[in-house]
Amino acid sequence: MTATLIKGTEIREQILEEITAEVAEIKEKHGVVPGLVTILIGENPASMSYVTLKIKTAHRVGFKEVQDTQPVDISEEDLLALIDKYNNDDTINGILVQLPIPDHIDEKKVLNAIDPDKDVDGFHPVNVGRLMIGGSELKFPPCTPAGIQEMIVRAGVETNGAEVVVVGRSNIVGKPIANMLLQKGKGANSTVTIVHTGTKNMDEHCKRADILIVAAGVPGLVKPDWIKPGACVIDVGVNRVGEKPSKKDPNKMVAVLQGDVDFDKAKEIAGSITPVPGGVGPMTITMLMRNTLRSLKFKLGIQ
Amino acid sequence: MTATLIKGTEIREQILEEITAEVAEIKEKHGVVPGLVTILIGENPASMSYVTLKIKTAHRVGFKEVQDTQPVDISEEDLLALIDKYNNDDTINGILVQLPIPDHIDEKKVLNAIDPDKDVDGFHPVNVGRLMIGGSELKFPPCTPAGIQEMIVRAGVETNGAEVVVVGRSNIVGKPIANMLLQKGKGANSTVTIVHTGTKNMDEHCKRADILIVAAGVPGLVKPDWIKPGACVIDVGVNRVGEKPSKKDPNKMVAVLQGDVDFDKAKEIAGSITPVPGGVGPMTITMLMRNTLRSLKFKLGIQ
Repeated sequence: MTATLIKGTEIREQILEEITAEVAEIKEKHGVVPGLVTILIGENPASMSYVTLKIKTAHRVGFKEVQDTQPVDISEEDLLALIDKYNNDDTINGILVQLPIPDHIDEKKVLNAIDPDKDVDGFHPVNVGRLMIGGSELKFPPCTPAGIQEMIVRAGVETNGAEVVVVGRSNIVGKPIANMLLQKGKGANSTVTIVHTGTKNMDEHCKRADILIVAAGVPGLVKPDWIKPGACVIDVGVNRVGEKPSKKDPNKMVAVLQGDVDFDKAKEIAGSITPVPGGVGPMTITMLMRNTLRSLKFKLGIQ
Repeated sequence: MTATLIKGTEIREQILEEITAEVAEIKEKHGVVPGLVTILIGENPASMSYVTLKIKTAHRVGFKEVQDTQPVDISEEDLLALIDKYNNDDTINGILVQLPIPDHIDEKKVLNAIDPDKDVDGFHPVNVGRLMIGGSELKFPPCTPAGIQEMIVRAGVETNGAEVVVVGRSNIVGKPIANMLLQKGKGANSTVTIVHTGTKNMDEHCKRADILIVAAGVPGLVKPDWIKPGACVIDVGVNRVGEKPSKKDPNKMVAVLQGDVDFDKAKEIAGSITPVPGGVGPMTITMLMRNTLRSLKFKLGIQ
């Protein structure tokens, strides 16, 4: 048997089209569009290309998008004042500060200064708390876990009563996805186990999983015989394991990426599986767009 | 084999003595003591007796304690102003609003008005978020889960690498204790599974547990054959299953309490177990005292 591929690239297109349609509808009815600002400090090339992709995507779905680039020597005070300006800007529904930021600025202080109701990344402690409390409290699920949940649901995998095993307990993926899937309600209500570096028999746990979510950052950690036949396998790992010449330009080297799961063998056992790359990766920016739309909808009282 | 009893009544005494000693030391060094205010609205007898116990305990450990009783028809505005007063009172480190509060007042609005740095109950979304993020972010673990963790540690049960199964996903017990025990660090680093009403094979999960924490509110839910021989069983359930004449005054009826675990049979299988009553119950107010002390220590920069 060969597993069905859960392609993030395809699901992204579906969701972005849905968002585009909803933005158009809101614009017609309410005369406003979601506004997203990305604050970039300095000229880190990786950050610049990531921010460019966010802004491009925001533009594509019809958002107002603002790219606010600041010099690398901006003071903490000025950065906080800038955030305050956007906190008070009615046309802005989502504020992002692209990480990393320079060492002379207190990262935690800056992120906590963002109005939690515009924190579309969902990492402010208030939004982490709202996520764990769940139900009507939930405002902005963090983007990668939200993308994982969406992929599982759209792949037609049943979460209700499913055995879910999450490998990894990071604040960005493991803990939030575990807390999301154990809640009551649609796309959740699963029995959830979190395993991590302190776990003694990780393989035994993985073997029980109807849905196995791996976010450990260890290439090939999950062996094929850890996978229950027919399980849904979500591989969040994106590990650079080497370099190879680019297809487009053979003179340029590009990273060779590998997931946390031994994909080639795992796909013969799993029922459905995400590839790396092209799996979970494309979902993150997509869900950032959805959170920004949610933010406007909360404000309009239509979420 | 008969299990060791983990007696909350005894552990409470140890911890209250430790707190008393620490309060005396801080008073000598810094000239201040922790201050706790309990806001009680109306004259609900159960609330009154619970508040009295809190105030008595605060007095016993050397806190400044304030019992602020308000009429049942207090307006939401006046209650919010009262909370604001205590938020700005330097001698107060912990603010409690005794629940339930009258229907004409928005409970969520009131609880969220408490300064998160004085929210010693730990239920403000900011504190829930800090708990899930963990590490140095953690400020006030909610009292019942904190009591459970303390009991496990003081009973000498190893949490590091242990299989923990939590039965129940409430915001008061199940979710927070699960999130606490899966963190890195002392008294934690366990592999955690949460089972709940949506779980298909609850018994199978419970049988794996080195530490089984039951907070379902269903009398006798956990059967003896669900318990792994030698496991540590923490029974959080306090279910009123009937009435009986009081020992002190046979003319007065008192509640017959039963846990979520079939205690008489379970104690022959478990390695250690909490009784009901006298197990987890006495820990809640104890940990409230500890959180109030923590609040002062954070303020003094000595936590």
